Amino acid sequence: MPPLRIALLQSSGRPGSVAGNLKVLDEAAARAAAAGAELLVCPEMFLTGYAIGDDVPRLAETADGAGARAVADIALRHSLAVLYGYPERAGDLVHNSAQLIAADGTRQLNYRKTHLFGCFEQQWFTPGDNPVVQTELKGLRIGVMVCYDVEFPENVRAHALAGTDLLLVPTAQMHPFQFVADSLVPVRAFENQMYIAYVNRTGQEGEFDFVGLSCLAGPDGAVRARAGRGDELIVGEADPGLLRASRGSNPYLRDRRPGLYTSLV
Amino acid sequence: MPPLRIALLQSSGRPGSVAGNLKVLDEAAARAAAAGAELLVCPEMFLTGYAIGDDVPRLAETADGAGARAVADIALRHSLAVLYGYPERAGDLVHNSAQLIAADGTRQLNYRKTHLFGCFEQQWFTPGDNPVVQTELKGLRIGVMVCYDVEFPENVRAHALAGTDLLLVPTAQMHPFQFVADSLVPVRAFENQMYIAYVNRTGQEGEFDFVGLSCLAGPDGAVRARAGRGDELIVGEADPGLLRASRGSNPYLRDRRPGLYTSLV
Repeated sequence: MPPLRIALLQSSGRPGSVAGNLKVLDEAAARAAAAGAELLVCPEMFLTGYAIGDDVPRLAETADGAGARAVADIALRHSLAVLYGYPERAGDLVHNSAQLIAADGTRQLNYRKTHLFGCFEQQWFTPGDNPVVQTELKGLRIGVMVCYDVEFPENVRAHALAGTDLLLVPTAQMHPFQFVADSLVPVRAFENQMYIAYVNRTGQEGEFDFVGLSCLAGPDGAVRARAGRGDELIVGEADPGLLRASRGSNPYLRDRRPGLYTSLV
Repeated sequence: MPPLRIALLQSSGRPGSVAGNLKVLDEAAARAAAAGAELLVCPEMFLTGYAIGDDVPRLAETADGAGARAVADIALRHSLAVLYGYPERAGDLVHNSAQLIAADGTRQLNYRKTHLFGCFEQQWFTPGDNPVVQTELKGLRIGVMVCYDVEFPENVRAHALAGTDLLLVPTAQMHPFQFVADSLVPVRAFENQMYIAYVNRTGQEGEFDFVGLSCLAGPDGAVRARAGRGDELIVGEADPGLLRASRGSNPYLRDRRPGLYTSLV
């Protein structure tokens, strides 16, 4: 099975301007496709921007809303899958979600962030209750999380136990927490024997100062691609052969002793 | 409450020579005490050496055996607590254990490694069944693990939930797994909001090539003290004030959602 080529769109975004963000996505999708990527991953709340404050309810849309249709059009036009973050309207509730649109424009997966970070998110969003949402892409089992979710080792472990090969993590990771991007994400990939694509916002939005440093980390803990602090499109590969070899020699999941972990639940 | 000053004895050891290893300990205890340390942490299987092969049953001793009494004598003479690894005889079984001897020479805590690594350990040792063993030292809640144990996020999380402030981890960490010493240990300290003292062997023993890189990592993920690849005694502090401040601002343990982690047990 050939490696999956993934583009990570680290972007400053335009808070409140869905049209502006879709334009950024369209241009990035063209560049990603030209670089041979089959999947483009965008940051958390990419569609609307993150620092939209009181506008969350107004800008939230259903998973099949106008934004989703516009993203589907971009995916179809450039023939690549797109994962994007957005505020999801579900009846009276709003979730902090990420949706995967396939290269043929169909909606393939929708995930609702289970661990909300800080006052802004806890005020405006309802946490999802399904920690493991998966799909298949080019022979790889894909999982999705959003930002803070990945900082909880239990959460990523649940994905590993469910067979996730590549975990996609749109994020809005801010100063002073760059230790997460630098160190925690590669450790998660290593301890769970998977690839993790961690895709951040960058620059200042309202009170938030996003740190960039998006990365693609592998099951050996090595970082395949790493962005700096500014707007950047980086490309890396998730290699099923390397994943299989790494899992063959690393016994973490086989050596677990679940009977000793009961205090965690 | 003043910080606890800890000495980490990174040592190559003398496989099979308990007397030789006790001499190394005695000299290190003198230097540690002179540096103001109140606790000296030694590597996994320090008493006997790690690569003792078929000699494990012969060299194993009970928790109150001759080696323990010799360590107690050293602790008492230099007025500092000592944590050391040794093969523990318990009836027909042998455990890979670590014991804490207080500065007054009393045996304060004994822990049996719960996650055994590789063929050598799985052949000779029986895993312990108690993942969280704790005691108090100068106002800090101390926990103990051995080597591979710390690589399982569930294991360290159980300590965090039980209130461990400072986790002592004697280890025998070998090539090519230095990613664990470099990156995983500081991430464990950060994600669990605790100090971790990770104390490794160094040099070649039989087929094993130990990587050194012992460290004291804090709840902010920063490394307070880091050894190189050779024999070295390093000193660092665990500060209850910093721990309290870090836990006050970091919400990881409060934001957990145990109901979502049931697949882990």
